[in-house]
Amino acid sequence: MRLRNKPWAKPLINANPEYIMVTPTDMQGKWQDRFEKSQPLSLEVGSGKGQFIIEMAKAYPERNFIALELQEAAIGIILKKQLELKLPNLQLILGDGANLTEYFAPAEIAALYLNFSDPWPKTRHEKRRLTYRDFLAQYEAILDPDGELQFKTDNQGLFEFSLVSMNNYGMAFDFVALDLHKDARVTDNIETEYEQKFASKGGRIYELVAHFKR
Amino acid sequence: MRLRNKPWAKPLINANPEYIMVTPTDMQGKWQDRFEKSQPLSLEVGSGKGQFIIEMAKAYPERNFIALELQEAAIGIILKKQLELKLPNLQLILGDGANLTEYFAPAEIAALYLNFSDPWPKTRHEKRRLTYRDFLAQYEAILDPDGELQFKTDNQGLFEFSLVSMNNYGMAFDFVALDLHKDARVTDNIETEYEQKFASKGGRIYELVAHFKR
Repeated sequence: MRLRNKPWAKPLINANPEYIMVTPTDMQGKWQDRFEKSQPLSLEVGSGKGQFIIEMAKAYPERNFIALELQEAAIGIILKKQLELKLPNLQLILGDGANLTEYFAPAEIAALYLNFSDPWPKTRHEKRRLTYRDFLAQYEAILDPDGELQFKTDNQGLFEFSLVSMNNYGMAFDFVALDLHKDARVTDNIETEYEQKFASKGGRIYELVAHFKR
Repeated sequence: MRLRNKPWAKPLINANPEYIMVTPTDMQGKWQDRFEKSQPLSLEVGSGKGQFIIEMAKAYPERNFIALELQEAAIGIILKKQLELKLPNLQLILGDGANLTEYFAPAEIAALYLNFSDPWPKTRHEKRRLTYRDFLAQYEAILDPDGELQFKTDNQGLFEFSLVSMNNYGMAFDFVALDLHKDARVTDNIETEYEQKFASKGGRIYELVAHFKR
């Protein structure tokens, strides 16, 4: 979702280079240098206001996390929270999900999260969906061969498209939930802001966990 | 669903060998001989009371159809209907879906339908689900390389299982519908008895169409 411009965001970003990269290509292959400890690296593509990635970073101190977000206003909000929390295992990127192979080296990422990304419902926009094959090729390039991709959405059409797209790309499915919040198999789901609101009104959340074949 | 025993079923079956095979292994590789015309052969595994296969046979006279059913009472009901209709492109089998490779030769089937099969919800029964890998191996053996498998269910757990099972087996997905009866892409859905009742109460029907990779 597009946020209103926040005039304070840019100065805050520029003032805190230790927490946020605006030139992520500089760190390709060296992201572990930005964390206190070298440990498996998870990336969320499209972090919105950051509730998911922050809760993940708190819940899994034994992993490092990167929030990638295109919108200055959104990443500014995450940065504000991180300036209070100072989580040693969380770094932010102001950048574009279409450029992942410029930001990361092959196999640099251990897990990749796509949460409630734009469904782009019109067929002529399908190439913009984050599960279109060109994006999958980028994820494959930066993911560790043992790494997994976790995809959540409330959009039925996007989930249908993604099941076919990820299958046709050759990915192996590990887990499918067609109503995540009522799923007895799931005990460790961490919600995004949007997910929390949507599911509290009874909306259905879909999840697919998959990996690229070795 | 299990039907009550119908005492009239067995004599009716025995009296009409031109429409129903009770020794289907005899016809392996020669099923086209049982039809008026030699044309692409579709098989439904578990036909219940036969509404789906009968409507399909009516709608597509340019294809041949076989209804396979384990229950004498159910196949007896289909036979009764066929004795009225005398569809030249419909044949019945009283037999077991676990023995498909004994009934059919390699590539003898052009399309295979699984409709609302038993979900076998307990994990210890997963091998009995008709989308378990051992069944998929049978479908692969009898399906034409260009042939497709069409799977419909209202059972969310079975659909989740089947998406993973069919993907892990290496099948390529052609189409996924997570709410078939509201799907604008679908204009030619033919319903089973059960599907009609269930969907008319607002229930959600899932569909997956896939093929084995060449």
